Amino acid sequence: MMFPGATSLNIALIHHPVVNKKAEVIGSAVTNLDLHDIARTARTYGVENYFITTPYRDQHTLVKELLEHWKTGYGARYNPARKEALGLVRLCESVEEVINILIERYGKRPLLITTSAHRQNNTILYDKLRKIIDKKEPVLLLFGTAHGLSPEVIQGADRTLAPITGKTDYNHLSVRSAASIIIDRLLGSREE
Amino acid sequence: MMFPGATSLNIALIHHPVVNKKAEVIGSAVTNLDLHDIARTARTYGVENYFITTPYRDQHTLVKELLEHWKTGYGARYNPARKEALGLVRLCESVEEVINILIERYGKRPLLITTSAHRQNNTILYDKLRKIIDKKEPVLLLFGTAHGLSPEVIQGADRTLAPITGKTDYNHLSVRSAASIIIDRLLGSREE
Repeated sequence: MMFPGATSLNIALIHHPVVNKKAEVIGSAVTNLDLHDIARTARTYGVENYFITTPYRDQHTLVKELLEHWKTGYGARYNPARKEALGLVRLCESVEEVINILIERYGKRPLLITTSAHRQNNTILYDKLRKIIDKKEPVLLLFGTAHGLSPEVIQGADRTLAPITGKTDYNHLSVRSAASIIIDRLLGSREE
Repeated sequence: MMFPGATSLNIALIHHPVVNKKAEVIGSAVTNLDLHDIARTARTYGVENYFITTPYRDQHTLVKELLEHWKTGYGARYNPARKEALGLVRLCESVEEVINILIERYGKRPLLITTSAHRQNNTILYDKLRKIIDKKEPVLLLFGTAHGLSPEVIQGADRTLAPITGKTDYNHLSVRSAASIIIDRLLGSREE
């Protein structure tokens, strides 16, 4: 979706394939607040599209109903700002479908970047990716639900962002928090 | 709560007095995910205490039940990491009560910093506050629920952090996202 301040950064929240706490590959259910919180952050920072990917038809039905409420139903009148944020959301079946939409949008394949709570062998630093986005190169950034993206998705990406670390060895951010922090590091004002 | 990596930063999520969309002063209800998401971010970055303040007794009962489940009930066995995060949460009636707890903890009054989506006349920049925390000076950072902290709370603080801005003029972050971004700016690793 084009809007003033839109950048070449696109994000996708992946519900399959992701891993559970035993590192088994699973599909997860869509969480209402993942849609709202991440859409609001995305719209604030200028993320152009926020893709929700799930192969499950019942989940598509659920997400469509949620979006309907906020985009054209009572929610749109009650909270126009929320309508604007959720206008960024696009529902897809797979990462491949998202990539094809972006190839059509930009005329080239986007740089595919994954995120992980663990350091991977294809790490890219935040400043490097920030500069790529500054040059308006199309980027697709993937976030995993449940316990994160499957190893297959991470290994299939061009690069993986360095994990977020605080002052402790505890590392259990919600995907909503991780997405907000990462988007701020990539697009936030640096006149701190 | 003391733990390895704990800093001198403390945060409080305020449920009264805050404002609604008409800028009227109200009290808000505690949201389950505000407890979880912000506690997880706080624990990751080394925030020492995460205070939930509300004057309402029924809300105290609700929060105590939630914490009980995750700290000593089934949730504690199911998800020990969540128990650890929610171990930071302390329930209080007012900002004054929080300040008194911190005076007892540190032997001095903490620097009182508010957050706002709008620029205030007592702004402090992120880098400045980051340096204060690096020196282990006690800091209490307040976040507002609903449409933000009441003007009275903001004007009564020592300073207010500059608002978070992205690439657009849209500015409707969830308090969960805003808290995560601000804590990352204050305590996050700078080897990006």
